[in-house]
Parts: sequence; C-alpha cells; structure tokens
Amino acid sequence: MASAVSPLAPTDVPEMPALAGVKLATAAAGIRYKDRTDVLLAVMDKGTAVAGVFTRSKCPSAPVEWCRAKLGGGKSSKGGSGRALVVNSGNANAFTGKTGRQATALTAAITAKALGCRPAEVFLASTGVIGEPLDATKFDGVLGTLAEQAAPGEWMNAAKAIMTTDTFPKVATATVKLGRARVTINGMAKGAGMIAPDMATMLAFVFTDAPIAAGALQALLRSGVEDTFNAVTVDGDTSTSDTLLAFATGAASEHGAPKISRAGDPRLKAFTKAFHAVLADLAEQVARDGEGARKLVEIIVEGATSKASARRIAMSVANSPLVKTAIAGEDANWGRVVMAVGKAGEPADRDKLSISFNGIRVASRGARDPSYDEAEVSAAMKNPKIQIKVALGLGKGRDRVLTCDLTKEYVAINGDYRS
Amino acid sequence: MASAVSPLAPTDVPEMPALAGVKLATAAAGIRYKDRTDVLLAVMDKGTAVAGVFTRSKCPSAPVEWCRAKLGGGKSSKGGSGRALVVNSGNANAFTGKTGRQATALTAAITAKALGCRPAEVFLASTGVIGEPLDATKFDGVLGTLAEQAAPGEWMNAAKAIMTTDTFPKVATATVKLGRARVTINGMAKGAGMIAPDMATMLAFVFTDAPIAAGALQALLRSGVEDTFNAVTVDGDTSTSDTLLAFATGAASEHGAPKISRAGDPRLKAFTKAFHAVLADLAEQVARDGEGARKLVEIIVEGATSKASARRIAMSVANSPLVKTAIAGEDANWGRVVMAVGKAGEPADRDKLSISFNGIRVASRGARDPSYDEAEVSAAMKNPKIQIKVALGLGKGRDRVLTCDLTKEYVAINGDYRS
Repeated sequence: MASAVSPLAPTDVPEMPALAGVKLATAAAGIRYKDRTDVLLAVMDKGTAVAGVFTRSKCPSAPVEWCRAKLGGGKSSKGGSGRALVVNSGNANAFTGKTGRQATALTAAITAKALGCRPAEVFLASTGVIGEPLDATKFDGVLGTLAEQAAPGEWMNAAKAIMTTDTFPKVATATVKLGRARVTINGMAKGAGMIAPDMATMLAFVFTDAPIAAGALQALLRSGVEDTFNAVTVDGDTSTSDTLLAFATGAASEHGAPKISRAGDPRLKAFTKAFHAVLADLAEQVARDGEGARKLVEIIVEGATSKASARRIAMSVANSPLVKTAIAGEDANWGRVVMAVGKAGEPADRDKLSISFNGIRVASRGARDPSYDEAEVSAAMKNPKIQIKVALGLGKGRDRVLTCDLTKEYVAINGDYRS
Repeated sequence: MASAVSPLAPTDVPEMPALAGVKLATAAAGIRYKDRTDVLLAVMDKGTAVAGVFTRSKCPSAPVEWCRAKLGGGKSSKGGSGRALVVNSGNANAFTGKTGRQATALTAAITAKALGCRPAEVFLASTGVIGEPLDATKFDGVLGTLAEQAAPGEWMNAAKAIMTTDTFPKVATATVKLGRARVTINGMAKGAGMIAPDMATMLAFVFTDAPIAAGALQALLRSGVEDTFNAVTVDGDTSTSDTLLAFATGAASEHGAPKISRAGDPRLKAFTKAFHAVLADLAEQVARDGEGARKLVEIIVEGATSKASARRIAMSVANSPLVKTAIAGEDANWGRVVMAVGKAGEPADRDKLSISFNGIRVASRGARDPSYDEAEVSAAMKNPKIQIKVALGLGKGRDRVLTCDLTKEYVAINGDYRS
C-alpha cells in the first residue's frame, strides 16, 4: 500500500520548535507494520490541562470511550488533567468488545507504571484496522523505554508514528504573545479519509505551554473545531475513532504568562486566533491527503438563510460523488452543483442561484450565465485548487468546507486492497 | 459513451401486453443523440386518472414543476386527469430558467393541438443534460406524426426511447383480477444514477386499464413508492427531475372491472400487491443498472427502534463510499459497516450489533464473530448479489434498501467523459 506522496502535500513544512512541558518518543512495537514506528508516547508536566472532542459515531472505539470518561464523560466534555498520551497506529481497537476495554486499561496501567502517574492521567488514541483485538501486552517494555527516551524535540517523528495510509506527516506550529510572554502551540494530525485498507480515523493532538485551565481549553477547542476539522470531508464517512485532544502544560507561566481560567478572557484573543489557525492548518492537510486526491476543493456557500443551512448545503456539495468525479475530470459541471444544492433539503430558490468555479461565474439566477467563456473555465479547472462558490441570494448565512476530488485511485485504494 | 449491458441486467424480460386505453409511439427528434429514438408519446383515453410523485430537490426541473401544477401543486399531489404523456431524453430542461417554462408550455401546446385535448391534460418529463435550453420547436411536426402512429403494443420501444446512459430498457408487467375482470399493469423506467455525462434523472411511468379514481391512484402511488423507488440509491445523488407518474385509463370497466374511488377499497387488495410488485421490479432494475455496477447490494436493517430509523441506517450503509468500494473489492469489510451504522446518527448500541454478509454472520455483539470462516465469506462475496444484514438488537424496526457497488468504472463514467 506504499503510495506516492499526495501532489497536494504542503511544500513548506515548518520547523517544529520544542514546547516546554512536553517530551516525545516513538518506537516500533510491531502492531501491524514492519520497519516503521507505530507507537507515540507524549509525556506532559504535572498539572497539564486536557480537553477533547471526539467522533459523533454511535459505535465509538474503546480509546474514545476511555478518553471521554476521563474528561467528564457524556457528550460534552468538561476537560480534565493528564500526564501522558499514548497513540498507536495499525489497530484502531474499535468494535473489539470487552477485549477492547481491557486493552485500553492495560495500556494505561503500563504507561502509568512507567511514568509514576495514575492510569486516569493517561490519554489514549488508536488508529488502524477495525475489529481486530489489540494486543496491548506488546506495549509492555516498549513504553518503559519510551518513558526514559522521551525528549522535547521529536515532533516530526511523532507525526510520522501516528500515520496509517497518510502519504505525508502533518504538523503545524504557531508562536504568539500571552500577556508579555511568548507561548507556543504545536499540533500534529493524521487522516486521509476513513482509511484503507480497513484503516479508520482522523487523529489530531495540539499542545501548548500556555497556562490555560481545562474548562477554558475545552471551550477553546470546541469553538475551534467547528470551522476546521468539522468543516473537512473526504468521503462523508465518519470514523469510529476520530479524536482531537489539546494539552496545555502551563510551563510558560514560569516566564510570566498569565494563568487563564476563562476562554472569554480578553488576554486570550491573539492566542485563540493562533490556536484556530493551527487547527485550520492541520484540517486542511487532512483534505490535502485525501485518498487518491488530485484536487483540493473549497466549497463556499453564501446567501443562505443561516450559517447552519450554508454548512449543510456545502457538505451536500462536498460529499456528492458526481460533483467530486466531475472535478477529478476537470469539468466545471455546475449542473451537478445545482443537483447537490437541491438535494440538501435546505431553503434554496433555483431562480436566485448563482455558481462560480475559481471566480468565474458559470450559472446565474437559475440558468447558465450567458457571458461565461468555456475555454477560460476549462483552463481554471486544471488548477490543483478548485473553489466552488454557491450564492443562494436568500440571506446572510455563509460557510466554507474543504474536500478533495473523487478519483479512480480512491476506488483502487479502498476496493483493490485484497487483490 | 456506448457501455456494455450491465452484468446485472435481468435475464428474463417480460413480453409486454397491450393495455386498453393506452397507445404509444416513439421518434428520433434529434434532441441530442444520433441514430436513436428520443421522444415518447403516450396517448390515453378520455377520463384517464393521473397520479404522480416527484423529486424532493429544491431545484426541480421545469417539467417537474409543470406536472406538479397539473396534479394539484404543492408537496402533496391530489391526482388529476390527463390524455397524454410526452417524454424526451437527451435534455433534462432543468435549470433553464424562463426558457424552460416556455419549453414545457410549447411542448404541451403542440401535443394538445395534435390530439385535440387541452394543454393541461398533457404530462411532461425530460431527462438528460442540465442547464441546456431545450428547443421544443423540434417537437413540432414530430408530435403530430406520433399522434397518428400511436399504437397499443410499443412498450419495449417506449422504454428504449426514454433511456440516457441506461444499458438496458426497463419494463415490468402484471395481470391481476379486479372484481371479476382481469386488469393489466404495465410499467417502464429509466435511470442509472444521477447520470453521466451530465445526465440526470430517474423516470418511471406505470399504466393500468383499471378504473381507479385519481385520489385513490395517488394514495396507491404514494404508499407504493416508499419501499420501492425511495428505497433505492446508486450514489446518494438526487436528480432535479425524478418523476414517477401513474395513469389509470379505466378501460377495463368495459369488461366489468368495478370503479374504485378509495385506495382502501378491499376489492383493490390484489391489485395493490401487483402494483407494488411492478414498482419494486422497476426500482430493482434501476439499481441493477447503476453506473459501473458489478454487484447488486441489498441492505437489511432489523432490530432498530423504528422503521424510519432502520431506513436511515440502511441508507447510511448504502451510500457509504467505503462500504461500496469494499463490496467492489469482494471484501466482507464489516468494520466499514460498523462505521456507516455509527455515523447514521440513529440509536445503535455497539455491543448489541451483529452483521451478516450473504447469511454468514461475521460480527456479533460488538466484536468479530469468532466462528466465522474467512474462506467461506470470501467465496460468498464473489456472488453478483450481496446481502448485508445489520441486526441492532434494540427494537422491531426493519427496513430494506437496494444499491450497487462503487467501481472505478463509476468514476470513469462520471469523471472521464471530457477526455
């Protein structure tokens, strides 16, 4: 399943700085892959605040249930505190019944012993095959060594260890002022669709040395995810394991960063912006690594009756196989966009609808735009980034979603893996 | 775009009997195709009752709006009466603005003149390219000739004239007793996804000589469509033009069939069953002709909290690109079925979930079924018909949906048409 790096991979990969209060180490535990790392241990300072958002799947994986319980359980996490994060690739520990729960408990126990913390302070994420029991005894020994080796500057190696069918590691970083101190935000992600063969999951982890209390971090994460990770789709298929965790070590308070207890604190304004930018950067990289993707597609819907309505219409366009195959074929097929708008079930008036591809209006007020030049549009469709703008002309609701095209390569990756 | 006939095409095509009160004729009007018929005229006896159900798209085509208005408008048609049906393939007359409305009015006027009826008694359906103006003047002359040529036994030719990228014509017939008289039900359909290149639409037309009043016919159609055409998906993309019309000429009353004014009339029981069977047969043929399809896939969900919930879960499985590509790859990938159940947003308890492929249980109570034999399942997946059964273990809700697999051929049909 060795795939070439996506042609949409970012060309400028940032140097990832060390982040006070976080140490990383990776190893090859042999969960599924050969000759590559598949376990990541992140060790955090005492007093690290943790926040999380998870898949909405009704059939979540065992690690998702584990993390949810540690963060206050139920649908809306309150946030909590933690000392460690263990991520393995190769096996999602999803739909594994009782043995799945035992595997999470065992992994947490091994980690807690190695670090001298409580199992409840260990956060877990797994990605890979669904339905195969995860043999957590393989972590025994490995995690002890990792605990000893953990070091501040291993971000790119960490991002590599959590990959499954990703074609490139995904990292992002930002530095920003909090009070008079400089604080850092480092993030990594993996995901390329609900991933083959049998591989599931979008995982993302964001770390900061800013001293932000768990409740505030949770609020920050929840508001940040809405227009970033929740606004990306590759194939409309939702993993059982999607996990986004944020860790705030608070180490920057040593050089004067003020302690923040509320997400609405005005001192957090620049931080919030940078935090959202890191999430947005990682989310876009997931779309850029969509399975078989050759085009990054941005769908903008404006003039809807509300933002929520604009989101649903944008998702209907983004998930339409016919829109996605047309883009793969470099055709500005606005008839299919009309179809996808029409099927969204949201308010739309055919005779007020306008559609543009990369800034060229092809349909206006319910009919083909008589002024558009087919040759100009055809040339624009050769661009690796395609923007589809749908103007509904009904209200002020606006939203934006990222996706990729649907190619034969997607079908090959997801259908041919047995042959 | 000449495609080989789908390997899933029915092997026994029925002889279509003449149906009293209906005459058919077809012609090549040169709308888009060369060397094939593209217009169908059906002429019905005076007093023919008409019922219809249409796409739920918010951007419906001009002919859909025309028919809706004739049947009482709005969302729920009351039924009406009609003398003619004109169907053209090659151009959907969708998203054509004012010119689209003018084209429907002109087509109805030409037809009415040729037949000596009112334009309001003419029903219209168009299928093909979206966004191209339909030149209805091409029907002038042609429809006059068709009105003269119309004859009782042209069913297979009629089904051929309405095809776009269909690989085989779709017909079904049934004969059943109504009172002491034998009545006939003849149907035809076209559709193979929201169809390439730029082709849209599922169209179906069902005719009977039974004397059924419009309101009763409408009720019959509405209840019949739910588990037939509404339970089929190829790619989850809804056309702007989907149209299902039913015509009851009443000619069978001449040899003693009783006039029926209510759908609940107990004398209609056998008829209702046969009518639904014709709809189900046609709907299955649409799935069998799904673009690029190599497998007919039946999704059965049982043990849901309600039938509606079972339907939503079944549709989530049926529209999942990952489930569909796995079936194309002949893999019983139940992990992806779990994923699709989980993302449906309906009540589901992972630890009660069981999944079978073609009768072989592969997952049970939230984990892999330890007893299943991989070789046996692999052999079963080579079957051209795949049944996926999901047992939720929560309640008595049950539903069934038909779809097909997602192959590279689908992407080629829908993406490569310009190259």
